[in-house]
Amino acid sequence: MTTMDVLPSPVRLQALDKPGQPAVTPALEELYRGFEQEMLVPLWTEIGSLMPLHPQSKATPHLWRWNNLRRLADQAGHIVPVGRGGERRAIALANPSLGGRPYASPTLWAAIQYLMPGEDAPEHRHSQHAFRFVVEGEGVWTVVNGDSIRMSRGDFLPQGGWNWHAHHNSATEPMAWIDGLDIPFAYHNECAFFEFGRDEIPPEEHTTPEFSFSERLWGYPGLRPVSQLESTASSPLLAYRWVDTDKALNEQLALEAEGYAATLSPGHAAVRYSNPTNGRDVLPTIRCEMHRLRTGAASQTRREVGSSVYQVFDGTGTVRVGERQWQVQRGDMFVVPSWQPFTAQADNGQASLDLFRFCDAPIFEAIQGHRVQMG
Amino acid sequence: MTTMDVLPSPVRLQALDKPGQPAVTPALEELYRGFEQEMLVPLWTEIGSLMPLHPQSKATPHLWRWNNLRRLADQAGHIVPVGRGGERRAIALANPSLGGRPYASPTLWAAIQYLMPGEDAPEHRHSQHAFRFVVEGEGVWTVVNGDSIRMSRGDFLPQGGWNWHAHHNSATEPMAWIDGLDIPFAYHNECAFFEFGRDEIPPEEHTTPEFSFSERLWGYPGLRPVSQLESTASSPLLAYRWVDTDKALNEQLALEAEGYAATLSPGHAAVRYSNPTNGRDVLPTIRCEMHRLRTGAASQTRREVGSSVYQVFDGTGTVRVGERQWQVQRGDMFVVPSWQPFTAQADNGQASLDLFRFCDAPIFEAIQGHRVQMG
Amino acid sequence: MTTMDVLPSPVRLQALDKPGQPAVTPALEELYRGFEQEMLVPLWTEIGSLMPLHPQSKATPHLWRWNNLRRLADQAGHIVPVGRGGERRAIALANPSLGGRPYASPTLWAAIQYLMPGEDAPEHRHSQHAFRFVVEGEGVWTVVNGDSIRMSRGDFLPQGGWNWHAHHNSATEPMAWIDGLDIPFAYHNECAFFEFGRDEIPPEEHTTPEFSFSERLWGYPGLRPVSQLESTASSPLLAYRWVDTDKALNEQLALEAEGYAATLSPGHAAVRYSNPTNGRDVLPTIRCEMHRLRTGAASQTRREVGSSVYQVFDGTGTVRVGERQWQVQRGDMFVVPSWQPFTAQADNGQASLDLFRFCDAPIFEAIQGHRVQMG
Amino acid sequence: MTTMDVLPSPVRLQALDKPGQPAVTPALEELYRGFEQEMLVPLWTEIGSLMPLHPQSKATPHLWRWNNLRRLADQAGHIVPVGRGGERRAIALANPSLGGRPYASPTLWAAIQYLMPGEDAPEHRHSQHAFRFVVEGEGVWTVVNGDSIRMSRGDFLPQGGWNWHAHHNSATEPMAWIDGLDIPFAYHNECAFFEFGRDEIPPEEHTTPEFSFSERLWGYPGLRPVSQLESTASSPLLAYRWVDTDKALNEQLALEAEGYAATLSPGHAAVRYSNPTNGRDVLPTIRCEMHRLRTGAASQTRREVGSSVYQVFDGTGTVRVGERQWQVQRGDMFVVPSWQPFTAQADNGQASLDLFRFCDAPIFEAIQGHRVQMG
Repeated sequence: MTTMDVLPSPVRLQALDKPGQPAVTPALEELYRGFEQEMLVPLWTEIGSLMPLHPQSKATPHLWRWNNLRRLADQAGHIVPVGRGGERRAIALANPSLGGRPYASPTLWAAIQYLMPGEDAPEHRHSQHAFRFVVEGEGVWTVVNGDSIRMSRGDFLPQGGWNWHAHHNSATEPMAWIDGLDIPFAYHNECAFFEFGRDEIPPEEHTTPEFSFSERLWGYPGLRPVSQLESTASSPLLAYRWVDTDKALNEQLALEAEGYAATLSPGHAAVRYSNPTNGRDVLPTIRCEMHRLRTGAASQTRREVGSSVYQVFDGTGTVRVGERQWQVQRGDMFVVPSWQPFTAQADNGQASLDLFRFCDAPIFEAIQGHRVQMG
Repeated sequence: MTTMDVLPSPVRLQALDKPGQPAVTPALEELYRGFEQEMLVPLWTEIGSLMPLHPQSKATPHLWRWNNLRRLADQAGHIVPVGRGGERRAIALANPSLGGRPYASPTLWAAIQYLMPGEDAPEHRHSQHAFRFVVEGEGVWTVVNGDSIRMSRGDFLPQGGWNWHAHHNSATEPMAWIDGLDIPFAYHNECAFFEFGRDEIPPEEHTTPEFSFSERLWGYPGLRPVSQLESTASSPLLAYRWVDTDKALNEQLALEAEGYAATLSPGHAAVRYSNPTNGRDVLPTIRCEMHRLRTGAASQTRREVGSSVYQVFDGTGTVRVGERQWQVQRGDMFVVPSWQPFTAQADNGQASLDLFRFCDAPIFEAIQGHRVQMG
Repeated sequence: MTTMDVLPSPVRLQALDKPGQPAVTPALEELYRGFEQEMLVPLWTEIGSLMPLHPQSKATPHLWRWNNLRRLADQAGHIVPVGRGGERRAIALANPSLGGRPYASPTLWAAIQYLMPGEDAPEHRHSQHAFRFVVEGEGVWTVVNGDSIRMSRGDFLPQGGWNWHAHHNSATEPMAWIDGLDIPFAYHNECAFFEFGRDEIPPEEHTTPEFSFSERLWGYPGLRPVSQLESTASSPLLAYRWVDTDKALNEQLALEAEGYAATLSPGHAAVRYSNPTNGRDVLPTIRCEMHRLRTGAASQTRREVGSSVYQVFDGTGTVRVGERQWQVQRGDMFVVPSWQPFTAQADNGQASLDLFRFCDAPIFEAIQGHRVQMG
Repeated sequence: MTTMDVLPSPVRLQALDKPGQPAVTPALEELYRGFEQEMLVPLWTEIGSLMPLHPQSKATPHLWRWNNLRRLADQAGHIVPVGRGGERRAIALANPSLGGRPYASPTLWAAIQYLMPGEDAPEHRHSQHAFRFVVEGEGVWTVVNGDSIRMSRGDFLPQGGWNWHAHHNSATEPMAWIDGLDIPFAYHNECAFFEFGRDEIPPEEHTTPEFSFSERLWGYPGLRPVSQLESTASSPLLAYRWVDTDKALNEQLALEAEGYAATLSPGHAAVRYSNPTNGRDVLPTIRCEMHRLRTGAASQTRREVGSSVYQVFDGTGTVRVGERQWQVQRGDMFVVPSWQPFTAQADNGQASLDLFRFCDAPIFEAIQGHRVQMG
């Protein structure tokens, strides 16, 4: 049951006596009663909030500390079972101004997921697009259409919509990771499908290979299997390993130091996870990137249509979102609402600041409605 | 100020003691208090409504009668001025289960707009995509970037985002028409921009040409001006005249009678308004079509991701939307929520049933998430 | 049997003793004999002609007078039958420097085709793309997949590859028109398929409707039949009528006079025949356009990758191609070889100069190798 | 000066008295003299060869032995200097039935290139697309827009059109490799541009890094630098290293053995070099692939529009092209003309048969004229 569902109808016109509105007369009141009766609402009472000069997000900049996320997930691990129905031990970030709903932003879901040693999460599939990102730990494998994919620190696992998937923890320790999905987008815009799969992962799929089939087939720069030439909506490469991401970021900074244009701005390296069948975003609705700020470096201030969720992968620094500012460290997550200015700065010291980011920009690009403003 | 904005935070977990949920223990209560404190919501209390097996629209099938729309618009014409601030004398359909908001569906805005003789609506532009469709009357011209476009019965006028536009009624009678926009989509997903233009339309733009510049440049089947070869997000053709639409529909039925595959199904002709620069939808977020059911003919039952709004252009018939059914006539408007089955049938008699339709399918097609189910 | 086929092998190295070449020594001669023996040719003897600084066409600018074309076609009409085997009474322009082959340019075929009263041309299909354009006369219908298409002065009929087609002259006079195809391109690059169809057009396809099925289905600006939503390689609209082309050109000049950007340059209107399913060229390999120069007006000088063939549709004027210049009138045809500068100027007087043009630019655009240079 | 240029005009009609042709009468002779005079050629004398039922290649299946290529290149290395004017010490395969021209097929250039120790090849750029492939040796670096790229056995280096490039041999041994280009295509179709660059490579570009800038920026599976988001016509990744290609092929065979669909057919692995900005072919006109046949395995017989050139990278086997058949080994090169059936089979024994292939299929796909027939 949603917030919207419980609100009473009919329409209530609360803007009767405000500046810029027609003078309240008996005729106007009668008109507005007519509107209410016929389920109508005039534009002139609504236009300011409905059609703002630029996006005015209903979401608020907010930070979730990793130690809290990790602590509560662990607590849940000990008292909430995982299984059919609840499906996943996933705990979602709920933006403070989105009515207590599990929405990091109006379009994005971000959650910490947790599996105890030996546990399985049952198989299902959904049209919502998803990914996993691992900030710490190991021991869980995600099984996608029968292909077991190892999850280790720094790995990124895209999960395009409508693929069967389950998880199993084959280690002796619990493991946490984050999930990102377009659940709020699909919920608001009413385009979601879901199907239950097998309740149990069969023993022969409880495998723990170092590399998945998908990596063995697709994990080579610029090489496509000739047996698989179609462009697919989501990436067929199901794991992007940290060793590659880390090296790509380091090399951008090294190339910059050698005078070659490789970074976004001085000291700011970034890679985008892409679909090797078409070079586009790894998922049709979610953009995923890893950013690295060299020690002491700051990103350019950026405003963008659509919202982003970040997780600090490593290092420490300061981030500014709209009028908020936080000192952040490993695992901390925060949301940048639509069109709010964002800047990050790495602390001076030994380490660079690594930020994993996901956002909904592909949706707006697909309908030719994306905008970015720098500086 | 929106419904969402006024809801209190923090998160409230109301699903504590329900079937399929973990047993309520002090540990669980403490866990849930921890979630509330840290702005977190678990998946397992939400998954049923958040991730349904198929789209479960928050909207309700609903019908608005044209005589009511027309009557209230006329009433408004006599007491509510049109001008800067309110911008337009537009009265929107408010779906009964969407909380009193001016949303025909979660993504679509549909309104009747009304101008008194001699009135102007001031210039503005917005990133939301729009169109006008004329079910009756004449006398108003829409001025787009200085190009005056006549509006007559049956005409369809697309209005791609971010073009300056105003309206003027140059006749001696009031005129009503309908507007369709993606306002709720842009509002929920936070991608909207708006800019005010000139308060007054200068006298030299109060022109009333029979055909606009855009038609004179683009209004020929399959012919493109070589001076304008770029593909544009929205159609550069700013009026699709009834004479063409009517003829195209008649010819489909005639071709069908001659044994040629031209209709969607027996007795069901349909044309889609398209962007001549790329053959795609006339607007990047809104699909617009005109359907004609031969007297007595019925459409195939169809479920589709995304919502539609229909207006009866001519004829009479019966429409079924989900579990609702209405007898409809000229001007009546109704909404088909996402994934609800829809069928229309023309009455037996002289006339065919003409239905103007708009929907949000281009959004879902652009992100490769569209689905249709027939029968 | 082609020119290439009759040339003797092996390789002959004729560049032995030229400036810029290695000194002729016994060792070099032995090396070159080795090359000949092993079917090898060095780059250094060939590079100048093979890899020029810009395209150096093997074709020559050339003009064919319509009265000669018409006269010889008529002569052929009286002594050469049309039927299976020869397939068409088509007489092709043979560029003077292309070895006596029926190539207007290295990629394009242009021919006058001629049918006597009551004659049929038998059915076939080929992967080569084709069109017909009518500079004078009427009475012939082209039958495409059973759809009879009238051919009248000014009409343009595209004929995408691999569609069955035949012609019949249902009038009491002979009729001539021009055909354009990509035969030389397909021949050189070896991608052509051909299939014979029915020897006789059945009586029920000897119809002479004013408008073809395809026009009745597709011939409306910006309207697509919802029953046919796929993008097709070639246009499904099988006739582009002169009434539309003429009006579009007139309106461009009228809009220019009213101060609106509608023409290519002052006094130079032009429309491109386009595929309504995607807004692209009417055929995947051939661009077709109609140009109109207002009396006294001149086009801008233009060089372009690829070759063009023009036919004067109406009016008189002067055209310059490379170092050639001709005074032209109705029906005259000429070729503009790749990268040769082209300008046209309408005579002063009553009439504008109308030029039908076709060229191979879509090929080079498709492989991202097109270039244009103005002025 | 080309073969075509030296052929005399005007048109000569040699088909006067043949079956299927009109009876030779004085009137016909006069008509044909009229055609000759006006530079015209009828279709009916030409159609059989011009418009065949399927592609009939002017090229012949032919094999060049690597030891001959290597020997003659070495001989040239000792007597023909490399420098401005001749540009490259490249020796091209000349198909025996293409008139002694340096065309492996009507569209493709294939050559062995050779540099002596310490030699440089001067800088230039051209619109023709190119690649290098290394079957043996090392020591040469290709410098592309200042980026030095190592060339080692098994490496593939694409070279998109219009990039500056030079080569330098920084080793103590000569080195040979093969070049592939679309020179014949560009020559016939007249779309080529060429520009000379610096005569000398400056000392600071005589670098010999293990990995080029381009690899350091682009050489990671599925990761794109956020600073470079445009889709480019040719791949920005300038070296595809053998270690990746070899592993990708081995894994396809291993996956096949594990029951996973990864190969083209049993025992036949293949990867396509792709452009990471769009997943398409590495060059807009040339497809490049590496094929591996497991010991004893055979490929399926395949006919395809367009021509291919193969080089044996490793192993031994038998190849059949049309009616020819050869036993092949490392370095041997052969051409498969358009629409000729092709099969390869690895010898039984220790090693698999590795075949490097390039072909012109992207051209035909771009104009939607590609066809493949299996079996």
